[in-house]
Amino acid sequence: MDQQIIDKLRDIVGEDHIRTSTAELYAYSTDAGIHRSMPDAVIRPRTTAEIEKIVKLANEYLFPIVPRGAGTALCGHSVPVAGGLVIDLQRMNTIKELHIEDLYVVVEPGVTHKDLNAELKKYGFFIPGPSSGNVANIGGMVATNASGGNAVKYGATRDYVLGMEVVFPKGDIAKLGSRTLKNSAGYQLEKLMCGMEGTLGIITEITLRIAPLPEATAVAVAVFDTLEKAGQCVANMIARPLIPSGLELMSRVCIEAVNKAVCMGLPDEEAILLIEVDGSVNDVKDQIRKVMEVCKSSGALSVDFTDDPERKEELWKGRKAMIPSLSKYDDDLVTVMLADDMAVPMSKVPEAVTAFQEISDKYDIVIASYGHSGDGNLHTKVLMDPTKRSHWDQAEKAVEEIYSKVMDLGGTITGEHGVGMTKAPFFLRERKCSLDAMKMIKMALDPNNIMNPNKIMDWEDNFISRLRYHLEEE
Amino acid sequence: MDQQIIDKLRDIVGEDHIRTSTAELYAYSTDAGIHRSMPDAVIRPRTTAEIEKIVKLANEYLFPIVPRGAGTALCGHSVPVAGGLVIDLQRMNTIKELHIEDLYVVVEPGVTHKDLNAELKKYGFFIPGPSSGNVANIGGMVATNASGGNAVKYGATRDYVLGMEVVFPKGDIAKLGSRTLKNSAGYQLEKLMCGMEGTLGIITEITLRIAPLPEATAVAVAVFDTLEKAGQCVANMIARPLIPSGLELMSRVCIEAVNKAVCMGLPDEEAILLIEVDGSVNDVKDQIRKVMEVCKSSGALSVDFTDDPERKEELWKGRKAMIPSLSKYDDDLVTVMLADDMAVPMSKVPEAVTAFQEISDKYDIVIASYGHSGDGNLHTKVLMDPTKRSHWDQAEKAVEEIYSKVMDLGGTITGEHGVGMTKAPFFLRERKCSLDAMKMIKMALDPNNIMNPNKIMDWEDNFISRLRYHLEEE
Repeated sequence: MDQQIIDKLRDIVGEDHIRTSTAELYAYSTDAGIHRSMPDAVIRPRTTAEIEKIVKLANEYLFPIVPRGAGTALCGHSVPVAGGLVIDLQRMNTIKELHIEDLYVVVEPGVTHKDLNAELKKYGFFIPGPSSGNVANIGGMVATNASGGNAVKYGATRDYVLGMEVVFPKGDIAKLGSRTLKNSAGYQLEKLMCGMEGTLGIITEITLRIAPLPEATAVAVAVFDTLEKAGQCVANMIARPLIPSGLELMSRVCIEAVNKAVCMGLPDEEAILLIEVDGSVNDVKDQIRKVMEVCKSSGALSVDFTDDPERKEELWKGRKAMIPSLSKYDDDLVTVMLADDMAVPMSKVPEAVTAFQEISDKYDIVIASYGHSGDGNLHTKVLMDPTKRSHWDQAEKAVEEIYSKVMDLGGTITGEHGVGMTKAPFFLRERKCSLDAMKMIKMALDPNNIMNPNKIMDWEDNFISRLRYHLEEE
Repeated sequence: MDQQIIDKLRDIVGEDHIRTSTAELYAYSTDAGIHRSMPDAVIRPRTTAEIEKIVKLANEYLFPIVPRGAGTALCGHSVPVAGGLVIDLQRMNTIKELHIEDLYVVVEPGVTHKDLNAELKKYGFFIPGPSSGNVANIGGMVATNASGGNAVKYGATRDYVLGMEVVFPKGDIAKLGSRTLKNSAGYQLEKLMCGMEGTLGIITEITLRIAPLPEATAVAVAVFDTLEKAGQCVANMIARPLIPSGLELMSRVCIEAVNKAVCMGLPDEEAILLIEVDGSVNDVKDQIRKVMEVCKSSGALSVDFTDDPERKEELWKGRKAMIPSLSKYDDDLVTVMLADDMAVPMSKVPEAVTAFQEISDKYDIVIASYGHSGDGNLHTKVLMDPTKRSHWDQAEKAVEEIYSKVMDLGGTITGEHGVGMTKAPFFLRERKCSLDAMKMIKMALDPNNIMNPNKIMDWEDNFISRLRYHLEEE
């Protein structure tokens, strides 16, 4: 990037908010995933007007721009793979308006999920979000359509977006959507922007619907001697109908890993369901009764409910400890995010988890399956020794088969993380028949292809080869 | 339209399913609104493959195509304003798949909301929809992002669309979205298609999330001596937090009209709130208690709850009778849909209703305001003598002011009906800053502009002049 451009950028945001030192560029060269590519510069604007100028400059000098929130994405979403300018939006972190009685808030993109919910909690409200919500930014949640374990009851981020302000790729500022709960006014561009991962514009303000916090919650542990029975129990619960606010499935590998790492004392069986229900105090009582009935009639070995806050916290801590716990499963193996975040229709969860186990056995590698089974979202970690070429060979074949199985089951390769770089090759297969429409929209809105180029459908590489190369190099 | 084209269309669907007689074209020249324009032909395909051929033919011979469901839209959505071919999708009326335990169904676009809900009811599920659901088709509900009075709790159609099959404007068939509750895989084109009103493609199959039917419901009538108090009561209820499944506001004009027309015996006061709560039996009890408290502390003159099925039905019948009732308000006046279906943030409802009353007084015409105040959606009917030029002059000015007020209050010109022709001039004002993006997407996907042309943002006429002309002509 020419010094001339850097100077112009400096004029826009001031000396303090443009960085070009190698150390700082390095910090912005990756996200929470495994890809890495250095930007030419990093800029930290404070206002929409500054962003408008930056985007217009990018069109004039044709350099790539990559918007970035907290960088918690796992698939290289904000990695500047073609260099250029990373736009760090974390200075835009104001909760601008609270309209509790109108069920909406207006925030800047750099507000964290945690900070927003802390403010909303004062009024008895919240918005659902991802496990990374302590640091994840609202802008990033919108741009990836992030969600978490309570999506079966509460939906994903897209369901909360009522409107937004964006700077489109050519530098035009537009207000999309509305401040009303209902809106049938033309193309719902605010929904199109959910999941665009910084390729169609920069989100500078978001209007979000809010949901009332439940009065009470209770958590159950249900134990099963087969994965199939646990899966059937989930299906029976939904069909009752009974929609829990959380429903997590842990297979044997995960149970062992968590017990070993954090001494949870979980029952040593094939499958456990963690079931959370919420609502008014009386409603929770009703739901507990129904959950007990369904679990027993589905063949649970035991079902234990608790509304004790300490035990509830301990149980969710165990669930959250799963990823770090898996690293302690075998001292010689580390967890690698190769196949992760697949989603299938809920009733297919047992078949998916069983298939993953068979694939794991076939290629002689350890694959831990767990997930938000209440919404069919499965997480899988490959445990391997990344210094061994043979492990990479096995993993590559196993991952290929896992994604194929997910697509065969009518599932998607990403339920809540997004595509980025890691999932792009599989995305191209899954969405083959709508890629043309996506590319036409991208070209129409971003004719110079400056917005986060070489992401999502603009990708042809084999990610495992890149990944392997990267690890072997280090 | 050349006979050659008609012959080719006949070859696609067979003799029985293409119509060109004047009587039949006339039946397809309008929807439930007030605009009228004759098509050149009407076709009734049964399969996606037939639609693919029709769309490719339209691109070859460059004639407009206008998809149509039951024709219940109120703003001219499916009126073939540029002539061409109307595609009636009502033969595609199969509920293809029910996946209750996976919380989704797959339907063809011509399935009615009523038929789908009748099937879902057997399993204890439903999807919310518009008041016209007895005849409205799912395809049309998606294409207009339709919704009804329970949207504050249950959302609009867009919130239920997980995926769909479409024939894009150039004839490509694509599957959009997924069958999973969560999906972060690229651009959410299935959400962009909600509200496109037939301008971006033809929806040939829809995958919808379903919601559990509540165990119990109860309805309250709360009476207030001012509109402001009723409005404040709504705000207090939401902020409590307490989200009713229905919340309807009736102002004095509406109360008088309903009492006169169907002898409801509603209290003769300034404002009534009809409040519906639903949930589990115990949850409904909790909510009734809270609603009573909030209504009383907000100054209600009286609050009467009922869970008696007959009385509940009678109350909603009164609400539903409002539009026909208004015609009996004054024997010399008829209701004309000039300003309708505006939505504002809920707390602005009293200000909006008061302003509409002032505008009504200023121009000396009767305007009845009512609406789904729980979600800020307001319906307004102008009562006028359409044979009087002076009434048209007054109405034109009043409507202009009503829409301006709605936009000033941060609202939208359409909450649940869509834009079509009637609302296009106001839509152009409301969405000024995102029209370019909408037009770019339209041009990218439909370069020949064959899909429902001259609708939404492709419109420059003054609708009241057209309307007046139409009525004066008859």
